[in-house]
Amino acid sequence: MIIILGVPGVGKSTVIKPLAEAKGYRMLNYGDMMFEIASKEFGVDHRDKIRALPKEKQFEIQEKVALVLAKEKGKVILDTHCSIQTPQGYLPGLPKKLLEKLPVTGLVYVTAPVEEIIDRRKKDFEATGRVRPTEPKAILEHEGVNRELLSAYAFFCGVPAMIIENRNGKLEEAREKVSAIL
Amino acid sequence: MIIILGVPGVGKSTVIKPLAEAKGYRMLNYGDMMFEIASKEFGVDHRDKIRALPKEKQFEIQEKVALVLAKEKGKVILDTHCSIQTPQGYLPGLPKKLLEKLPVTGLVYVTAPVEEIIDRRKKDFEATGRVRPTEPKAILEHEGVNRELLSAYAFFCGVPAMIIENRNGKLEEAREKVSAIL
Amino acid sequence: MIIILGVPGVGKSTVIKPLAEAKGYRMLNYGDMMFEIASKEFGVDHRDKIRALPKEKQFEIQEKVALVLAKEKGKVILDTHCSIQTPQGYLPGLPKKLLEKLPVTGLVYVTAPVEEIIDRRKKDFEATGRVRPTEPKAILEHEGVNRELLSAYAFFCGVPAMIIENRNGKLEEAREKVSAIL
Repeated sequence: MIIILGVPGVGKSTVIKPLAEAKGYRMLNYGDMMFEIASKEFGVDHRDKIRALPKEKQFEIQEKVALVLAKEKGKVILDTHCSIQTPQGYLPGLPKKLLEKLPVTGLVYVTAPVEEIIDRRKKDFEATGRVRPTEPKAILEHEGVNRELLSAYAFFCGVPAMIIENRNGKLEEAREKVSAIL
Repeated sequence: MIIILGVPGVGKSTVIKPLAEAKGYRMLNYGDMMFEIASKEFGVDHRDKIRALPKEKQFEIQEKVALVLAKEKGKVILDTHCSIQTPQGYLPGLPKKLLEKLPVTGLVYVTAPVEEIIDRRKKDFEATGRVRPTEPKAILEHEGVNRELLSAYAFFCGVPAMIIENRNGKLEEAREKVSAIL
Repeated sequence: MIIILGVPGVGKSTVIKPLAEAKGYRMLNYGDMMFEIASKEFGVDHRDKIRALPKEKQFEIQEKVALVLAKEKGKVILDTHCSIQTPQGYLPGLPKKLLEKLPVTGLVYVTAPVEEIIDRRKKDFEATGRVRPTEPKAILEHEGVNRELLSAYAFFCGVPAMIIENRNGKLEEAREKVSAIL
């Protein structure tokens, strides 16, 4: 299992999806898996409402997703957050309790220059109405925490952590780099 | 248990104390708890002399503080160091062995622009005679190590890590942000 | 056991070797130990060919080195990589699985200004033909990952992490600083 990480709007799927499919990987999205269980078992009708559930229920859902992921045996790419910005701070997307259950073989962190992230988020807002922070300082802070967490994850699993820059006009370079781990 | 961290002189107590008291939290200071046990059991008469004890005794004291903290059940805020500057390097304030015993629910890291930290340390020296590094490079290095440790702590506990800037004249903003976790 | 870390070409041995010998430490090199076992058991005739072995064999060799290191009882300095640059990304030099077996008492990270690292690598190339990245951006990224890993190691072991700058013309200062941990 390869885990792909990066702040929202950095273009994780754009970089990895075509390659992953060509090489026979299945793409799993952690958020989708959370939502599937949340809707089935707690009647949640929108992804953003999972956070409104009591904490114990959220942990229960996480636990179930982890169990499903732990059993994955084929070539799988898991798309998730390095950390999630919450009003209580940066919540690690792969806390020890979850990470120790996953059969991880590599980590890929997608990054981009901060101006490009801002630009992509603005376009995403125009297209979908999705609101995300666009202040450079907030994005840099989030990037910093993510990089620190990436190293903690790599240490804990003993697997390589690849850092890929997804710059405008350099998509092919990014894809070539990521192909070394697939 | 919420743990509040930050370099000396950054203003941790100023930010959190009034809020904590208003919301019914008890404030615990790790250094005070170390000193209490050190003075009771080894006759140490000043906080700074704990470091002069043989390492095994220091570990024994830490062990006892951890046992007390592990039993805490109410709403508690623990005030401690993210890392301590020693002649041997940066010693993590919450090493794995300690952290795994604590019922942590959130981490709060207080930071400030480096010039303001220097300024506060100089004032603190004038008022109390307490000597702390005031070279920008040393403070930035310490801040960097602290932020990396903060992420390691968050990963290990699976709890959110909040980063709060305590700028001159922006105390109310800092307090408003921290109130989300209390 | 003290572990000394730093990017290739930063001058780890130059800083620590004379002091270590004067103070009765034995110097061990993780790469040498890997190669010794690889050559004895799998007929590998060059260090760089270890990476060409199947992954399971590499893990087997690591396992054996860890067993030897775990039994070390005297004053030992282990010279190894904080992370290794591989086509798959930054591979932690001291993953949890290895680190938890070692009797670590302190970590020393040697760093230097990026221009000086580049300069030393160029001279090293002229002298030995050894090729290493000389782009500032790549070196800074590697340094960043290493520092994050250093903090994760310190957290995990509960030992101090010393950061030493090995600047041109400041070797004595660096040695004086490191002597505090030996």
